[in-house]
Amino acid sequence: MKQKVNIEEITKAYLRIKKYSLLTPLLSSIIFNKEFNTNIFIKAENLQKIGAFKFRGAMNAILQLDSSEKTVLAWSSGNHAQAIASAAYLTNRKAIIIMPEDSPKAKLDGTKSWGAKIVTYNRYKESREELGVKIANQENAVIIPPYDDYKVINGQGTVGYEMVIQCNELKVTPDMALCCCGGGGLIAGVSTALLSEFPDMPIYSVEPNEFNDTKLSLEKKEIVEIDITKKSICDALLAPKPGKITFKINKKNLTGGLQVSDEEVMYAIKLAFKYFKIVLEPGGAVALAAALFKKVDIKNKNVLIVASGGNVDNEVFQKSLSI
Amino acid sequence: MKQKVNIEEITKAYLRIKKYSLLTPLLSSIIFNKEFNTNIFIKAENLQKIGAFKFRGAMNAILQLDSSEKTVLAWSSGNHAQAIASAAYLTNRKAIIIMPEDSPKAKLDGTKSWGAKIVTYNRYKESREELGVKIANQENAVIIPPYDDYKVINGQGTVGYEMVIQCNELKVTPDMALCCCGGGGLIAGVSTALLSEFPDMPIYSVEPNEFNDTKLSLEKKEIVEIDITKKSICDALLAPKPGKITFKINKKNLTGGLQVSDEEVMYAIKLAFKYFKIVLEPGGAVALAAALFKKVDIKNKNVLIVASGGNVDNEVFQKSLSI
Repeated sequence: MKQKVNIEEITKAYLRIKKYSLLTPLLSSIIFNKEFNTNIFIKAENLQKIGAFKFRGAMNAILQLDSSEKTVLAWSSGNHAQAIASAAYLTNRKAIIIMPEDSPKAKLDGTKSWGAKIVTYNRYKESREELGVKIANQENAVIIPPYDDYKVINGQGTVGYEMVIQCNELKVTPDMALCCCGGGGLIAGVSTALLSEFPDMPIYSVEPNEFNDTKLSLEKKEIVEIDITKKSICDALLAPKPGKITFKINKKNLTGGLQVSDEEVMYAIKLAFKYFKIVLEPGGAVALAAALFKKVDIKNKNVLIVASGGNVDNEVFQKSLSI
Repeated sequence: MKQKVNIEEITKAYLRIKKYSLLTPLLSSIIFNKEFNTNIFIKAENLQKIGAFKFRGAMNAILQLDSSEKTVLAWSSGNHAQAIASAAYLTNRKAIIIMPEDSPKAKLDGTKSWGAKIVTYNRYKESREELGVKIANQENAVIIPPYDDYKVINGQGTVGYEMVIQCNELKVTPDMALCCCGGGGLIAGVSTALLSEFPDMPIYSVEPNEFNDTKLSLEKKEIVEIDITKKSICDALLAPKPGKITFKINKKNLTGGLQVSDEEVMYAIKLAFKYFKIVLEPGGAVALAAALFKKVDIKNKNVLIVASGGNVDNEVFQKSLSI
């Protein structure tokens, strides 16, 4: 059967993983809305198991493995690593994780504590894919890609599936959705789920200024690769280009791409602390930053914001609170 | 009809307020549990509207007012103030709030932003009750007490009502519950709800070392008043003695009282940040602190922890992360 991303597969993914995952709340703050003249709902995936939405895609993929497939391998800047390591742990499998040597300590430690084997590489000089394929062959491991994979995308889509349920419970018709974008797996799944219920809703990807590959690709209507020697505090969103599968979906689903600066992201982390009492990592705060800094008109609109994760080091968080 | 606190009234309160309040998640962290050899579930009331459980009791009381009762008055160290101010705002009433002049800025600002009139007093020299009654008479305002009130306690009990639902969904039978305690309204309501489903479960109050009036009262089986000239960072828990109504309930429901130091509380704030990605205020972190510092045996037990709020100043939070 041909694999695909659609609301039926996302619904199946939801039923498959719900025993393991958390139905994360859709947060709102009346005071925040009063002060910013908007009506924002934050899907708090920082509260998800392992502190990020990535747990969903990983569980959805791993729960479909054959019982003879005992070793999984993944490459990741951090959250996908923890997701695969935890999903392997929960299903009694061995995990091998390829991580950049400059990953935040919180993410390296988090991955290690699941008992995964970690192999580090230099993000500016080596190809994680090549290294991953080589080791997977040596170790007879199943590769679970971070985003360009149908099962992973359908798993991430359960974030959107839950948001649809929550909007309906609140009797809220959303006017738009903003979602962070690295390789594009989360927004591909989320947009598919949201559009199945709200077919005309504009949905925007949000990226760091220097890693705006999806924005550029959407504008050019084809995959654009960017220079990734630049730096950003959004360690979860440093993809050089959209995935093939994710971009095909996102090209169809998304209205456009937005981008934000590191400073705007840190301010969003601070406001999420102040108004919503949640801990966001930089990559998890870009969508909120785009709303706060009016990259799109949010005035008097019902705005869905996906806050994707909370795995942030003390120093970055403290620096953000002091901004 | 005689007022009372019981599961029927708590259920009614739940149905009354659910349109306004958030069903806060029951968080767990597999890694945390692995590292601390326990099975902890945190009821994250920091995510509640206004950043604390107090919203529930306030809404439950105010939604039962007559439409002719247009002004409400409350005294509070902060979260009850915001709760009453927001509930008044949402039901088109005027709110007058009596607050200590040394309340955290976050709480003073939070209350002001609802349009409430604030009257400050000196916590060490003046009686907030006397001042409150005087102003209520002048302004024809309905006083809503912070804890010693049936409607307020039943409202706070909805925290426990939701925990029962969530435990049943997770198929978890809790071995014990730990809950912070100031005047005792939250734990009176929560323990009533939890014991209605799990009648033999031990439930412990947790207080700051220097404000252990409920612990002392439970030991002596009568209300003990303590010296409140001492200081604690747990600004939400600085009651001099248990309430009459709350103590009558808590004497019956609670197994005992625990206490923690300010330093233990700050460490709990740090771990809530690290493992659960939530922002806790000191008073909201005492129950977690009691578990972390083994004030009671949590080894291999299913432990329910109520994290009551997240209205913390930047400085205290940053200091906690640096501990």
